[in-house]
Amino acid sequence: MKVALLGHGTVGSGVEKILNGMKDTDIDICGILVRNIRPDMDERYTDDVEKIFGNKPECIIECLGGDEPAYSYVKRALESGIDVISANKKMLSRHMDLFDTAKSNNTKLLFEASCGGGIPWLINIRRIKRNDEIVSIKGIINGTCNYLLSRLFNEDISFADALKNAQELGYAEADPSDDICGYDSRYKLTLSIYEAFDKIMDYSSIPCFGIDNITDKDIQYAKDNNMVIKLIASADLKGNNISAFVMPCFIRKDDIFASVSSNNNILMSDSKYLGKAYFAGQGAGSLPTGHAIVQDLLDLKNNEMCLNESEADKIDNDISRLGVFYIRHQNIAAFKDYIAEKISDDSFISRRCSFKGISDIIDNNHDEKMFIGEINR
Amino acid sequence: MKVALLGHGTVGSGVEKILNGMKDTDIDICGILVRNIRPDMDERYTDDVEKIFGNKPECIIECLGGDEPAYSYVKRALESGIDVISANKKMLSRHMDLFDTAKSNNTKLLFEASCGGGIPWLINIRRIKRNDEIVSIKGIINGTCNYLLSRLFNEDISFADALKNAQELGYAEADPSDDICGYDSRYKLTLSIYEAFDKIMDYSSIPCFGIDNITDKDIQYAKDNNMVIKLIASADLKGNNISAFVMPCFIRKDDIFASVSSNNNILMSDSKYLGKAYFAGQGAGSLPTGHAIVQDLLDLKNNEMCLNESEADKIDNDISRLGVFYIRHQNIAAFKDYIAEKISDDSFISRRCSFKGISDIIDNNHDEKMFIGEINR
Repeated sequence: MKVALLGHGTVGSGVEKILNGMKDTDIDICGILVRNIRPDMDERYTDDVEKIFGNKPECIIECLGGDEPAYSYVKRALESGIDVISANKKMLSRHMDLFDTAKSNNTKLLFEASCGGGIPWLINIRRIKRNDEIVSIKGIINGTCNYLLSRLFNEDISFADALKNAQELGYAEADPSDDICGYDSRYKLTLSIYEAFDKIMDYSSIPCFGIDNITDKDIQYAKDNNMVIKLIASADLKGNNISAFVMPCFIRKDDIFASVSSNNNILMSDSKYLGKAYFAGQGAGSLPTGHAIVQDLLDLKNNEMCLNESEADKIDNDISRLGVFYIRHQNIAAFKDYIAEKISDDSFISRRCSFKGISDIIDNNHDEKMFIGEINR
Repeated sequence: MKVALLGHGTVGSGVEKILNGMKDTDIDICGILVRNIRPDMDERYTDDVEKIFGNKPECIIECLGGDEPAYSYVKRALESGIDVISANKKMLSRHMDLFDTAKSNNTKLLFEASCGGGIPWLINIRRIKRNDEIVSIKGIINGTCNYLLSRLFNEDISFADALKNAQELGYAEADPSDDICGYDSRYKLTLSIYEAFDKIMDYSSIPCFGIDNITDKDIQYAKDNNMVIKLIASADLKGNNISAFVMPCFIRKDDIFASVSSNNNILMSDSKYLGKAYFAGQGAGSLPTGHAIVQDLLDLKNNEMCLNESEADKIDNDISRLGVFYIRHQNIAAFKDYIAEKISDDSFISRRCSFKGISDIIDNNHDEKMFIGEINR
């Protein structure tokens, strides 16, 4: 099987290392697209994408990251009869049309590594769906946030210092907003919704709150109540509606989600027969992510993908779901109808109420320092 | 695809319910073997196994439990070219020759539901192995023990009362020894070792300690040290050796294994590239177990089993592994060379030492009330 790699950074080099270490495989890397050719690179390396396509690979593994040129290359491959494996959650979730492109060209688009890193998540929800109906999914799917939150709960350190330290260690980007504002989790949730429910939801319709405004007071409230805070991405099916959110959540310390610390990830699927099933492990890293990509490649080669061939419909996000929220906001008076318990002059716990009502007030009372988290989800 | 069910108890009826609910499937239950025919049963039900084989099913699903006649029926099926799915951990782990029978007859023997109930464990370790090397496995795989331990840690209740209550609720058998002495976990570990390492280990060579002798004092020691006790089954690869144990373990409260409570199960695989991957969920129950069996059936039907065709070798258990142990024993003097910290007149924490040394003393100083647990595994 002739395979081409687009990109040879953290993920691409992990894929190559794992493929090199496999015995008795007929997988052959026929081309590797890199930005800059170095003298020590062999003849498979090129900076010319035409050479990659000219080699007529059966599968292209896209590890470029970013929107372009990744999107154009993936689209071209799918339209040329070449199967694609991508780890690019940002690009895929913003271009869900690619799934139609794949289906109409009878090509495959696999993306296990894009969601939960090495954790075998998408294949397992595809498998579960074969004889069951998934009713909700939930995950801690951003390692950077989980690392920061773990430090905030275990050490006497400010958010700013923890972030600076994470950046020095390479656990957070120079511009950390995709991670800490929840956007990265939202991309991954969009892709998980596609796999779990066969629905295409516009990523921008998913309410998204991050951990960037978390303070010592919020953490203290959690600790006083025997809880931790985790950034949770979730989607629930109710009838024909799906409610999807990315939001910090206050979670009891003895919950399995509370036990997933540092940069690890966990994902949960709840279905009619199997019930809650949890998948946890390394959400990033060269070899775990490389492992997930090679798993896709083996599934493709052996035709063991458990793919559903039906078309996915578009669906709106239903944000009318009820919940109990912890809110810190300078204009607490605006929320007066929702307050069940006042914690301080700028924070309170809501009654069980519709997120829609709360969100309308938030939208009308812009506050850069606001922090919101759902309780006991 | 013509399928026959052997047994229509908790598991068998779950399988039937799930198959009945599936649309667009060409799986047809052509016979159901039961002990006693009732007037309300349709013509598929029979108490005559010859009718089952006479129907020429392509696959037999064995949900009888127990050793005989399950073993004879499974062997006969495999030798007659019929694939078999079994949930019977006790029978399978005591008759590992069946795996050879399957291979030499070019038939398949799948057993996902036998280990971890509904949790997709065996398929995932088979998948991981395709491009990775598993170096250790570890699990909480007995729901009865986990339910009892959860109650002992969360309530002021004695082991005897918790057990009696569990029996009344149907969470424990009238004769609970298979569960609470660790034998059930040992059966499941034997089967997991087969899948993870392609090795056949005699189940009786695995040291097996249960939770039946646990006392308030042991629990108090755990609590005082911010730990819980869980019954752990584990196997570690070191070079060409495998060390396998079933033993209570003292685990830090913030560990993911500590967060798996009540009758839930968790299983972990650690491998070279993927690292630690965790799978958790319902370890028993009619529908979760039925779900796992139907998953095997779909894999069989679609040829998506990810099976390794190579023969499994026999391997001895290497119990020389080093560890730190909590031991309560009336003859503490016998262990004098191993004591790192004395807790009371009949209990101590060992230094890091070989399990072999400790086990020799245990064997030579029989004590019905002894409790042993490993620390911080």
